[in-house]
Order: sequence, then structure tokens, then C-alpha cells
Amino acid sequence: MPATSREIRLKSRPAGVPTHDNFELATVELPDPGPGEVRVKNLWMTVDPYMRGRMNDAKSYVPPFQLGEALQGGAIGEVAASNAPELKVGDLVNSFFGWREAFNAPARILEKLDTHGLPPQAFLGAAGMPGLTAYVGLLKVAAMKDGDVVFVSAAAGAVGQVACQIAKIKGHTVIGSAGGSEKCRYLKEIGVDHVIDYKAETDLTAALMRAAPDGIDVYFENVGGAHLEAALTAAKPFARFAFCGMISDYNTTDVGTGIHGLMQVVGKQLRLEGFIVSSHADMQPAFARDMAEWAASGKITWRETVEEGIERAPDAFLKLFKGENLGKMLVKLA
Amino acid sequence: MPATSREIRLKSRPAGVPTHDNFELATVELPDPGPGEVRVKNLWMTVDPYMRGRMNDAKSYVPPFQLGEALQGGAIGEVAASNAPELKVGDLVNSFFGWREAFNAPARILEKLDTHGLPPQAFLGAAGMPGLTAYVGLLKVAAMKDGDVVFVSAAAGAVGQVACQIAKIKGHTVIGSAGGSEKCRYLKEIGVDHVIDYKAETDLTAALMRAAPDGIDVYFENVGGAHLEAALTAAKPFARFAFCGMISDYNTTDVGTGIHGLMQVVGKQLRLEGFIVSSHADMQPAFARDMAEWAASGKITWRETVEEGIERAPDAFLKLFKGENLGKMLVKLA
Repeated sequence: MPATSREIRLKSRPAGVPTHDNFELATVELPDPGPGEVRVKNLWMTVDPYMRGRMNDAKSYVPPFQLGEALQGGAIGEVAASNAPELKVGDLVNSFFGWREAFNAPARILEKLDTHGLPPQAFLGAAGMPGLTAYVGLLKVAAMKDGDVVFVSAAAGAVGQVACQIAKIKGHTVIGSAGGSEKCRYLKEIGVDHVIDYKAETDLTAALMRAAPDGIDVYFENVGGAHLEAALTAAKPFARFAFCGMISDYNTTDVGTGIHGLMQVVGKQLRLEGFIVSSHADMQPAFARDMAEWAASGKITWRETVEEGIERAPDAFLKLFKGENLGKMLVKLA
Repeated sequence: MPATSREIRLKSRPAGVPTHDNFELATVELPDPGPGEVRVKNLWMTVDPYMRGRMNDAKSYVPPFQLGEALQGGAIGEVAASNAPELKVGDLVNSFFGWREAFNAPARILEKLDTHGLPPQAFLGAAGMPGLTAYVGLLKVAAMKDGDVVFVSAAAGAVGQVACQIAKIKGHTVIGSAGGSEKCRYLKEIGVDHVIDYKAETDLTAALMRAAPDGIDVYFENVGGAHLEAALTAAKPFARFAFCGMISDYNTTDVGTGIHGLMQVVGKQLRLEGFIVSSHADMQPAFARDMAEWAASGKITWRETVEEGIERAPDAFLKLFKGENLGKMLVKLA
């Protein structure tokens, strides 16, 4: 039987900080699934900072979102109708058809999800792309080694919370930066050794130097701006910076914040390396094994901030840039 | 018999651009060499941009120069008197006792120089530390690979001129930036594919994009500032930047120029890595072999800019920051 789905479309490209005016809610009809197709009812969708880049009409590592079309992103759904042997009604699937309540798609392009006892939405967060991002950034890009002092910015965010805990599991001293007392309390709960409330500090560099008087070996970069400058100053010789994102710059309409102190890259022989998780899919099996063990043994926990209903998806997205999420920001769709 | 030597001392620490007032010429008496010692009469000394950092009273990878003491740096000299079996009068030695006409030192800490037919001062330039710097930066740090488009800033300088030619020998397309028509003419002579006269360009990024419409794979960074920003914008995905120096920032009294566009490090998955040649001494034997062959076969040539007399050493140094050297800046002492 046909159905309807509400979806969020890109109405206009944001100039600077996105607003509600850039989004529109639309309703589409879904026919019965064709041969080989299933209909999926989404349970959860993710909003992530990187999506801001796709809202610009610029060449990047993923093509821009198209005006007037539904946005895309990770989603966990349940098969509601099937015309394909691979999937049956009730199966959970992991797809890139987020920002909508339901969709039809060929079964062959959908990933059937085995939750291994975790809540399904974990696969949009700690057990999914954000978790893998933390894993790749620390273990491969920054190549953490014994005794490293690790600094994580946006430490209470979707990626940061996992990065802090992986670094602790591996025996490192961890410094986490976040904004506000609630996030900082959470970081202490998950074992972060030194917590910096950057909103309460007038001199972030001084705060970092107090937390790491001998300097840092690894910086997991999520923020840019003053955080990056502080990390450059606090870096020990041969420190490695894994550049995951720079949320402080995503909404600038020019080329972003000017970063001072880069000359230290020479004298301290630093390595600054950017990465995109999809380039490191080879690490997914090891990550899945490790994360299953760490989650089962309680070595890794995580928080979520949840908005409910597709009509709230733009709010959830906008809150990312105000730092209003503790842990993974999600939208519950059913 | 005792002798005298004139030397250049650091009189005061420069604030910003150094001036003649920061230096003083002094004369010292040299006693007869003690047991195991030799007296060396310097023939050539080098001035290099990195010395500016040692004039600050700041922790760095080399300790600061001391006020009232002779400066230090590479020098090629000839043994004038020997009280040691390892070295005899007339032997050439490579030492770190530059900025002075003569000195006494234990023979065991001096490196006897075999020029293999090259002019001795080449071992302060293309066949010495600057040449090794180019070699390490391209072959190890930037890890050039077949088909790379290589951008070199300060391309007509001591390091840059060697970097351009090594990249050409290895079969790469090379873009070199230098200031002024004389330097640019020289770069064409040594086979640089695209020459940018940055002093004649109002938009360096646009000039680089014209030279490399498909982007660059490697950036050999000697300059900082607008050059670095242009390289970030022109970088292809997975481009590697070898940070050798940032001469545009050496004289700033704050933390240096703010660099815009660093967010591209994430999206393009760039690697920016600083290095100091002394950390890569393991490459010296391979460099010496390759350079001897390239020099003998005429595959690598070089230019020098020479000031004469110890009293001109500060001038030679100051000219580095005005870009007045074509190739290696040297001071001829005898």
C-alpha cells in the first residue's frame, strides 16, 4: 500500500550560520516498493557538522546538496514493506537516506544492521561513523604511542567523547575541552584527566599549558581557531595533530579564521594531518570488534541529545553550531 | 705563534627585523693551539635564515645565541697550525665556528672536508646543509611520488634552488616562486616549468592556480603567509607540505601571520609536516652520493651571492630578509 513521508529539503544555501529559512518540510508519496525494493521507515537520523559543507555550492570531498531536494545523511530504519528476498519486514537497516521519515530503495544498496545488543541509534554515534572517526584519528592519523599526552577539543561531542575514552583505554593522559559545566562534568565522569571549560577561560593557551605543563603529543582537532593555536603552542616536538574538523569555521563566509603560530610546525617538527573517515574504511572491522568489546565491558559509554520528529531536524542541526549537544545529536523519527 | 681573529658578536637581541645595531665586531687573541688542538683560518662562512630564531631568547630546537658572544654557524676553513695528529696544516675542515676569521679547537670535533672536486664553499650550500634540507624535505617528508606537481617557494634561495632541481631530476612538474626578474630568469635556466614572480603578482593564489590548474601535490614551504595560503587553496587531495621554514614570519614580534584556509587540511586530507634537517642525518650518506653524481654530471648547478670580509657578515645576514640573495648567501673570509 502506498504511503507518505515527510522530508526536509534544502530551500536555500546558507550564507554564514544556517537558519530555519534554509530548510523546508515537504511531503512525498511513496508507491509500493518495486521488484527488489523495500520500503524503510526511519527510526533515527543523524545530524553532523560536516553536513554544513554540503550546503555550500562548492567542490568538496562530497558533492553539494541540491536545492529543492531532500537532504541526505545517516539513518537507521526498519523495513516496513518488502519486495526483495534479502530483507524482510522488521529488519533494521543502516542507510544514507536520512532527513526523511520513510523511503523506498533497492535492498541491495542497504546495509542490514545487526545491533549486537546495542541500541540501534548507537550505530549513528559511538558505534558508527563518529566512533570510527575517533578511532581512525587517534590510532592511525595521530598514531598514538605509549606515554602520549592527548588533547581533544569538542571533547563532549559525538566524536570527542569516544576519542577521550579510546585514549584512556590505551593508557594515555587525556585533556578534554568543552563548553559549560554540564559537559565538563560529563568528561570527568568518563575519566578525562584534565577538563578545560573553554567558555570559562580567557586564555585557552594558558589553560592548556596548566593542564599539560610538559606539553601535548597528540591533538585531536575538532574546533579550529583558538583551540588550534593553543595546541600549537602546547605541542611538544614531533607532536601529531589529527584534523577531524574545525566547527568554529564551518559558517564563516570567507576562508575562515586566521591561525597564528604555524611557524612552530617547523621548529617543533609537528605533523598536522587531515582525514575523512570514509578514506579509512579498512579500519571498520577492527573498530567494530574493539567497540563491541569496549561497549560490552562498559569501557566506553556515550551520551545522546535527542530531538523528536522530522520537523525538528533543522533545529537539531542548528544546535550543533551553538554547542547545544551533549554527546551525539540525533533526531528520533519513530 | 699567537694570532688575532675578528668575530661578530650578538650585541643586543633584535626586536623584529634585525639591524646593524644588534651586532658588534670584536677582535680576540688566539693562543697557540694546545695539545690535540688546531688553529683554523676560516675561508667561508654561511648566513642562514634559521639563525634569526637563535637571536631570540626563547626555547627552541637550538639554544639561543648568547649576548656578547660570537655568533655560530657553518664555516669552511683551512688548518693554519696543528698540534694534533689527525689534521695537518692545509687540511680543509667543516665546522660550526662561523662568524669569525679564525679559531682554535680540538681536532676531534672538526670534520675534515674532502671536496671531491667541488669548490669548498659548496659544502655550505648545495652540497651541504641547505642541499640536504631540500633532499630530506622532498624525498622523505613530502615523500614525492611519480607524477607529483611540486611547488617550491623561495625557489631561487639556497634550499629552493636545490629543491627545484631534485624535483626535476625525479621527473616532476615544478612550479617555483621567487621575487624579481633576475631570480625568475635563473629558475627558468635550471628547468623550472612554471615560474611565479610573486612581487609582480597581486593575487598569488590565482597565479599558482594558473600554473597548476589541476592543483599541486607537494609544497616545499620556505616562506609562510600568502604563499602558504595559496598552496592550501591549490592543493589536491592528499597533498603533502614539507615545512622547511617561514621566512616571512621570522621577524614578526608576535606569533606570526594569521594563516587562512587551514580548514582545507580536513576536506582535502592534507599532511603538513615540519622538519629540521639535523633530525634526518641518516639521509646524509645517500645525499652525498646523489649530489656528487648530480653535480658531476651537471644535473644540479647552483648560484651564490657573496659578501667579502667578516665585517660584512651582518650585511649578508640582513640581506636574507630582504630577499637580496640569489642562491646561497655566503661570506668570503679569506
